[in-house]
Amino acid sequence: MTSRERALALDAVDPLAPFRDRVVVADPELLYLDGNSLGRLPHATRDRLRTHVEDEWGGRLVRGWHDWVALPSVVGDELGAALLGVGPGETLVCDNTSSNLFKLAVAAMRATGRRVLVTDDDNFPTDRHVLAGVADLLGAELRVVHSDRDAGVSVEALREAVRDDVGLVSLSHTAYRSGALAPVAEVDALAHAVGALTLWDLSHSVGAVPVDLSTADLAVGCTYKYVNAGPGAPAWLWVRSGLELDNPVQGWFGAADPFAMDAPYAPAAGAQRFLTGTPPVGGLLAVQEGVRLLAEAGLPRLRTKGQALTSYLVELADAWLAPHDVRVASPRDADARGSHVVLEHPRAWQLVQELVARGVVPDYRVPDRVRFGPAPLYTRFVDVHDALAITRDVLASGAHLTRPAEPARVT
Amino acid sequence: MTSRERALALDAVDPLAPFRDRVVVADPELLYLDGNSLGRLPHATRDRLRTHVEDEWGGRLVRGWHDWVALPSVVGDELGAALLGVGPGETLVCDNTSSNLFKLAVAAMRATGRRVLVTDDDNFPTDRHVLAGVADLLGAELRVVHSDRDAGVSVEALREAVRDDVGLVSLSHTAYRSGALAPVAEVDALAHAVGALTLWDLSHSVGAVPVDLSTADLAVGCTYKYVNAGPGAPAWLWVRSGLELDNPVQGWFGAADPFAMDAPYAPAAGAQRFLTGTPPVGGLLAVQEGVRLLAEAGLPRLRTKGQALTSYLVELADAWLAPHDVRVASPRDADARGSHVVLEHPRAWQLVQELVARGVVPDYRVPDRVRFGPAPLYTRFVDVHDALAITRDVLASGAHLTRPAEPARVT
Repeated sequence: MTSRERALALDAVDPLAPFRDRVVVADPELLYLDGNSLGRLPHATRDRLRTHVEDEWGGRLVRGWHDWVALPSVVGDELGAALLGVGPGETLVCDNTSSNLFKLAVAAMRATGRRVLVTDDDNFPTDRHVLAGVADLLGAELRVVHSDRDAGVSVEALREAVRDDVGLVSLSHTAYRSGALAPVAEVDALAHAVGALTLWDLSHSVGAVPVDLSTADLAVGCTYKYVNAGPGAPAWLWVRSGLELDNPVQGWFGAADPFAMDAPYAPAAGAQRFLTGTPPVGGLLAVQEGVRLLAEAGLPRLRTKGQALTSYLVELADAWLAPHDVRVASPRDADARGSHVVLEHPRAWQLVQELVARGVVPDYRVPDRVRFGPAPLYTRFVDVHDALAITRDVLASGAHLTRPAEPARVT
Repeated sequence: MTSRERALALDAVDPLAPFRDRVVVADPELLYLDGNSLGRLPHATRDRLRTHVEDEWGGRLVRGWHDWVALPSVVGDELGAALLGVGPGETLVCDNTSSNLFKLAVAAMRATGRRVLVTDDDNFPTDRHVLAGVADLLGAELRVVHSDRDAGVSVEALREAVRDDVGLVSLSHTAYRSGALAPVAEVDALAHAVGALTLWDLSHSVGAVPVDLSTADLAVGCTYKYVNAGPGAPAWLWVRSGLELDNPVQGWFGAADPFAMDAPYAPAAGAQRFLTGTPPVGGLLAVQEGVRLLAEAGLPRLRTKGQALTSYLVELADAWLAPHDVRVASPRDADARGSHVVLEHPRAWQLVQELVARGVVPDYRVPDRVRFGPAPLYTRFVDVHDALAITRDVLASGAHLTRPAEPARVT
């Protein structure tokens, strides 16, 4: 069951296998299992960015805005349709995830007039930080519920916290460390029962894990992970159709007519008003190409392969790594887990340093976790096999113990 | 005085003339006088972006963050030193101008505890819109003083408005329409006399017009105009050293240690805390190349040439266009004007359409203005000559009258 032949056999019948040729693989020996942190460069994106910079910016200059100005909503609609299953006019690509979370959280809290926001203590740091800032700004309280670091969000804990003083419940769909999935519909129901809105961070889901937003109100996410749009590519935001909120950051691109110039601020209709300043054109085009490539692969096939890859990884970890003090800290049920797997080990930092030196790229998450994100679009089963085999060899030999310990952190 | 030979003679002795070869000139016939809206593509930027996308993102993948993570402050420091005359640790390249203005305005108002913001009615739309949103969010009043559309900010009007209930005075340095310069030190003194802070938008100055920030508190600006960093490139913000403010958008990159993960939010020291989410790496590199090119040219030489170009343009407008109902609506004193000139004409919209069709690119600003921005880095005197000659011919022939009128605006 752990043989390399089995991995090769799984790759041979993988319907997404041809997509590996659609992304740049600069070093074929590199076992890249960090597509959940920064996705690979699609060939189409490389070409599109070159054309954009050299022909469009370089050649058309300011006249290019004729085609660029609508990109935040054009690309937003494509992303919404392919990856979120939502209709047009609800999704925008703009700013970064933190800024989008801020805008929507402030807007939601002001709309409800409530004084409590709810999140959980295992939420991604920027979410906890931004929500704490929103609470501070609005004179509100951030009520933080406890989540199990392995199993994720607890509906029981939320049931207790989500009372009728709550205006917004903001959580991540896929937990950044464990990969545990939150029960979206249940949380939405809890929130709506007390008149609160919900805001989901789908950064660790979008492009790999489908999510049913039919009960949700608001969502945000990044595009540099599974959407493969590059380092610091613009993020997206989604506002349920019919939900009328006010953007606190009233930039000109969110105005009904940005070029009216003399008019007082009048917000654009729908989600469009959540734009702020001049949109980053190159980044938007990279998101567009990333979305189109995923749309071609199809989210159901991506999810199926993501589950198969992570299940295979768990299987190998159990067989090879458990004897070396490694514990699978992600849900074992593939339906309860996103597209990455986290392994707990007391020397996680040193282990990751040694793996990177050997051409295996996972990432480290404090304090004792190694995270493997085998992006379904381009990761092979044999990559998972070989990465886990190397991990086994490192642990068996104790080679990681020669690496320096994690440096002291600033805080 | 209006001969083409004179323009050629001025170009022959222009010390910045060689810099035209440092930017892409795809169409040598195009008379591009809109560098104040979107600057040209430097060759170095084209090469750098290609390397970044294809080798760094494509090849190094997530490992590239080792070098990318410090870019917002590294590039900020370079921009601050070369274009703002400020010290290290005060300038960051991040987000867009609207978002930066929002963060700093909210921070300043909360720090002063006052309830009034002051701006002027000729400020750029996004500034007026963002400040109105900040006032609304904080339950404050936005006090809008009247500025003359040609002469710019009135110190008398400000003197009346800036009373001891004011927490922040936020204005643009170079007016986007007229090009009139605001008296920074005088406004700073007025504000400080009542305990208010000042926040300057230098979007239409940075890279072409020096500004003395020694009396100022806060500033923002874009990089896609004279800094030549491309459409929607990230903006910058500046916080006077020693001024401790709180960023309302508490994203993880503004935390003391973004990767501490489990720690509660603790802001980074100094300006650094005004970062929000994951920074846009490609955009940051484009800003870096743009700044380096300007640094090589030198801000004093850029200013000298900018004044010579705009003075020459005014001279030709007086000689050729005044008889055709065109009025120079920018200050005639070059020291009172930025690096662009605006001409008033009742058929400005139609005139711009006809000029663009003839290969002359200025831009239109409501309701009756044609704006010429001869970026000093790469614009030749002969470009100004030829563009104005074509403008004269259009007006003399009435060719613009065949163009459709401006479409009705949304608002």
